[in-house]
Amino acid sequence: MVDLIIKKRNGGEHSPEEIAEIIRGYTEGSLPDYQLSAWLMAVYFKGLNDKETSVLIQSMMNSGEVMDLSDIPGIKVDKHSTGGVGDKTTLILAPWVAAAGIPIAKMSGRGLGHTGGTLDKLESIPGFHVDIAKEDFIRQVSQHQIAICSQSRNLVPADKKLYALRDVTGTVDNISLIAASVMSKKLASGADAIVIDLKVGDGAFIKKMEEAEELAHIMISAAKRMGRNITVVVSNMNQPLGHAIGNALEVREAISVLKGKGPKDLTDLCLALGTEMLLLSGKYPTAAEAESCLINLLEEGAAFRKFEEWIQVQGGDINVLSQIDLLPSCPIVYPYLSRESGYIHELKAHHVGLASMKLGAGRETKESVIDYGAGIVLLKKVGDKVKAGDILAELHTSDEGSIEEACDHLSSAFVTGPEMKKPDPLILKIIH
Amino acid sequence: MVDLIIKKRNGGEHSPEEIAEIIRGYTEGSLPDYQLSAWLMAVYFKGLNDKETSVLIQSMMNSGEVMDLSDIPGIKVDKHSTGGVGDKTTLILAPWVAAAGIPIAKMSGRGLGHTGGTLDKLESIPGFHVDIAKEDFIRQVSQHQIAICSQSRNLVPADKKLYALRDVTGTVDNISLIAASVMSKKLASGADAIVIDLKVGDGAFIKKMEEAEELAHIMISAAKRMGRNITVVVSNMNQPLGHAIGNALEVREAISVLKGKGPKDLTDLCLALGTEMLLLSGKYPTAAEAESCLINLLEEGAAFRKFEEWIQVQGGDINVLSQIDLLPSCPIVYPYLSRESGYIHELKAHHVGLASMKLGAGRETKESVIDYGAGIVLLKKVGDKVKAGDILAELHTSDEGSIEEACDHLSSAFVTGPEMKKPDPLILKIIH
Repeated sequence: MVDLIIKKRNGGEHSPEEIAEIIRGYTEGSLPDYQLSAWLMAVYFKGLNDKETSVLIQSMMNSGEVMDLSDIPGIKVDKHSTGGVGDKTTLILAPWVAAAGIPIAKMSGRGLGHTGGTLDKLESIPGFHVDIAKEDFIRQVSQHQIAICSQSRNLVPADKKLYALRDVTGTVDNISLIAASVMSKKLASGADAIVIDLKVGDGAFIKKMEEAEELAHIMISAAKRMGRNITVVVSNMNQPLGHAIGNALEVREAISVLKGKGPKDLTDLCLALGTEMLLLSGKYPTAAEAESCLINLLEEGAAFRKFEEWIQVQGGDINVLSQIDLLPSCPIVYPYLSRESGYIHELKAHHVGLASMKLGAGRETKESVIDYGAGIVLLKKVGDKVKAGDILAELHTSDEGSIEEACDHLSSAFVTGPEMKKPDPLILKIIH
Repeated sequence: MVDLIIKKRNGGEHSPEEIAEIIRGYTEGSLPDYQLSAWLMAVYFKGLNDKETSVLIQSMMNSGEVMDLSDIPGIKVDKHSTGGVGDKTTLILAPWVAAAGIPIAKMSGRGLGHTGGTLDKLESIPGFHVDIAKEDFIRQVSQHQIAICSQSRNLVPADKKLYALRDVTGTVDNISLIAASVMSKKLASGADAIVIDLKVGDGAFIKKMEEAEELAHIMISAAKRMGRNITVVVSNMNQPLGHAIGNALEVREAISVLKGKGPKDLTDLCLALGTEMLLLSGKYPTAAEAESCLINLLEEGAAFRKFEEWIQVQGGDINVLSQIDLLPSCPIVYPYLSRESGYIHELKAHHVGLASMKLGAGRETKESVIDYGAGIVLLKKVGDKVKAGDILAELHTSDEGSIEEACDHLSSAFVTGPEMKKPDPLILKIIH
């Protein structure tokens, strides 16, 4: 192994066998952490080329169980977001695209963050369960075109180990390693085709457009080498997506989108991502047709009905759909007021995310327990006119003591100026 | 720690407290290997500046016992070689310089390598012992001006742990880390002033003059920051030093130098290093005076008598000095013949070293047992004229099975050409 570390350190290219051996050895435990972390740091500095990255993805994918979804007819298209603040697109897209007849067989994770993961959001619906046996999962998708369950524990164990090590050794932010983490999990989940929602901006771990394009290029190249179709939608994450941040709050907002009454930015992004998913399914020849199909499904209520069907199948209380107050909520709703008059120039997603976590919506550590009702509802976003004393946001929490710190974060998040300012475009680039 | 790793990864400068904390944490075990190895790799790529390196040296030095030699009167000058093939200078220099009235209080190590370390060479003298209690060590130096003992186990424990980790993580060859390893040990051994014999060439781990100058600069800068005098002698290690490689064989050659009958290259290097040691002792105002003093001590026999006194004090059988055959020897002495006629153009030290290790003179692994009599005597060196069939070297071994592999290494070591070729100069640069 020391020779392989030195090879990469000196800028050499690994053979496929070498990369496979590194991943196999590390997953099995024969390769110690301290050698892998030195290799990861060498990779940070010297990079992995497209070929090495593809082999890395493949080796990681094969480190554990690889889902076989071939019993489900049709092309299984998955969507993955690289993560942002207020990102509830999966809750909306899954039933919307399923309503178009595309099978959605999705595995999701939890993880740390500003709000919970998709699973946590779904579990904020009373009764909803995400632990589904493989056979039931496949049966459900075949019958209802939709299922979202928790990841098999044995899905890409290499990624779990690698990510934990990268997290504590300063080797997270390397484009190839990021691509490998995302792609290995998507491919192991059995997806035939993938739409990546690549977030760029203050609230995402990719801050610059050039990095986003490089990451997109690597993911596309790797997917193509492995014979999978992929589309990368690069979207803006300078300010949070939609108005709600927090698990049950985001479910409410997802429902309003599916009822055709959601915020424009969130609806637009879901429509764009859905259009790309429909295109990859091979059932829709043009983007215009795919888009108009989706618009119809929303307007006709088919997307909402598919959501209702899905919640019911996975044990959720569908009464929440008509009586939204049945969702978890918090005793304290604290208004965060503007101190200035003018226009909102910035609404830094990262700080809003931290505020939301403080209020109880996310996990600071693995052991943190999420307060499903907690979070933030933004009443003003970039471009909005405000007067001193206007409510900028509502803070939902069960912990009064968290409000002060959350307000501190929000005061860093909101930047007001005298002139009108248009928000940045939401969808920055679609890369095939 | 992850913040410190990222800081260095991004090219930042550590504060003294940060470096002290890293070394303290790692030595105590609160900082895990996998974080340190990532940091080491970041250091490999981003380097440590002079100030960081000095703090690293100081932190490592203070990780264990720091010898207090203040009971020994006078300036204690130590010599350290960065390691080469056939390097027996310490055996010669220690009594030679001690004969000039400079106290030599030296701690030495064993370690892996082509031949043993200085301790192994000394222990090839029957009866010689190197385990001396601290009080006896100080008393011996005060009475006899000379003692060489094994390093205290608690001398720079940080270096032991760090070196073991660097060795398996591809982070050995960084100039600052090398400097810190050498300097922390020398300073912890209580030296007031240090002469470094910095080897450059095929048989050294520093291959190029520029690297040597950079390393010299870092060591000088660090020593000066800590108020110690230092001189770096950069010497050639393309071919082995002297003719003998192997423990008892090197003792023989050392004795012949001390009798004034040694090979010119070895004698010259010892004289140059000794002159620098005398200058650092402060007792000799000019290099000319220091050198002429040393030449006198050799010619008068005082250096040899000091050697005899030293061997006796440390329990060695001084009969070996008159009856050299009392030193360990091997049953097999195999002549390695030249296949070509011409002039020796190269005699690659690294390959000679490997041959010598195969014959039993060195340690391949920590568990290897050294055959004190084994090794190589070179009869021809660079510049010498040879005829096909001439003996180029004698292979001394107790293991007939090792001869073939040793010969393979020697055939890579000797390069013959038709024209006369002068050997490279031995002493390349003296840096104060």
